[in-house]
Amino acid sequence: MSGRRYKEVHTLNYYMCDRNQTLTMPMLVNLLLEVSGQQSGRLGLGEETMTEMGYAWIILQYEFEIQRMPKFLESIEIETFASEYNKLFCYRNFIVRDEQGEEMITVFTTFALLSLEERKISRLPAEILTPYEAEFNKRLKRTARPASLDEEQAIVRSYRTRYFDIDANQHVNNSQYLNWTLDTLGSDFLTTHEIKSGTIKFAKEVYEGQTIESYASIQENSEKILSAHRIQDNDVVNCTASFRWAKIES
Amino acid sequence: MSGRRYKEVHTLNYYMCDRNQTLTMPMLVNLLLEVSGQQSGRLGLGEETMTEMGYAWIILQYEFEIQRMPKFLESIEIETFASEYNKLFCYRNFIVRDEQGEEMITVFTTFALLSLEERKISRLPAEILTPYEAEFNKRLKRTARPASLDEEQAIVRSYRTRYFDIDANQHVNNSQYLNWTLDTLGSDFLTTHEIKSGTIKFAKEVYEGQTIESYASIQENSEKILSAHRIQDNDVVNCTASFRWAKIES
Repeated sequence: MSGRRYKEVHTLNYYMCDRNQTLTMPMLVNLLLEVSGQQSGRLGLGEETMTEMGYAWIILQYEFEIQRMPKFLESIEIETFASEYNKLFCYRNFIVRDEQGEEMITVFTTFALLSLEERKISRLPAEILTPYEAEFNKRLKRTARPASLDEEQAIVRSYRTRYFDIDANQHVNNSQYLNWTLDTLGSDFLTTHEIKSGTIKFAKEVYEGQTIESYASIQENSEKILSAHRIQDNDVVNCTASFRWAKIES
Repeated sequence: MSGRRYKEVHTLNYYMCDRNQTLTMPMLVNLLLEVSGQQSGRLGLGEETMTEMGYAWIILQYEFEIQRMPKFLESIEIETFASEYNKLFCYRNFIVRDEQGEEMITVFTTFALLSLEERKISRLPAEILTPYEAEFNKRLKRTARPASLDEEQAIVRSYRTRYFDIDANQHVNNSQYLNWTLDTLGSDFLTTHEIKSGTIKFAKEVYEGQTIESYASIQENSEKILSAHRIQDNDVVNCTASFRWAKIES
């Protein structure tokens, strides 16, 4: 597969982990974006350079496959590469491995380039992709669609954006969407279940001062445990997501 | 000064920093406790060992002096040592230095030992302090008292504890108290001011499921800009704090 590879090792500390001594999903997203941000910086295409060029990357979707979530004090290797791009989208993969080199997590992400002047998605210029050694393929990739919310049984919680939700990139930190989405499921469910796979699809950015509603429904039968999610502010949907879960064996 | 010294270098990444490209107070606290936790682990007195011995450290107070907050991408050295202890309290210092070795932040913290069985503060046994090379001094140190809230002009915001607020130590992550305290001041104030010093004093732990009220008042005159804070749930005060601020020169 094409794409220039970059990797970093991170050791998980207590503030990255939940009460089950396991890396949290919000912190996983922080670590992934830290690693891809480092690659961009080293290729001379960091945040600042992109801004000067009039662009900003936006994330449209994450698709997670989780064999095992890393634990407190484990050292993990995070590898990333931009695999392919077309006129509109760039696809970036992440592989998280344990100290024995075993794959623990794979993440497939879809990025697009925002033109800061026009405030809309820009056609991807080859010169921005060349340093990443990503391959051009005009065919758009098929991406997963999150499972639909069960409106009848959905539960809802409100979240107000907070000052520290805005990070150095001037936007609500990407991990907050995961925080709002998952928190709605409540601790009885979250302490006894673990995520095996998931898709999160971003539709519209949440801004400071907004209070969003996070809806969630859980479907559980002998075949699967599936949660579906929607974050919205009045009629505007900010993101949708779904996760497949397994009971934690104790 | 006595106390076995331990230090680590950390490089600040985007999720640790706010919109002003500056390390956030909640993340500063996370980094400090990560470093002191590492020292304890290396001395054979990590969280797990302490639990087996029937103890847990609790933090009673932080006193911060900030010459300059570190910026995005800076590498900082965090040094810590347990300086002194008496029957009831152990005092731990932190010094944050920049790449030139200049002191940026000093933090003076007061810890106590909780007996897990009795659920109360335990007398400090010498064998727990010996590895830290902390000096016994029977005199209790004088610690700062946070400035009082101006009840008349106080503003208030509610915060519900969330699932991911509980960290691997099984408690509301210490940094959340800073998050709730400071967020109440609002972004107009926070984007234009920086903390020069502060004191945060913990009275009672906040538990999962609780919704707390965060009160804040600002006193501003030609001599100083001072904010005072109280976090409480009904009649129970969880913590009090005050911070001295300066306007950010732009």
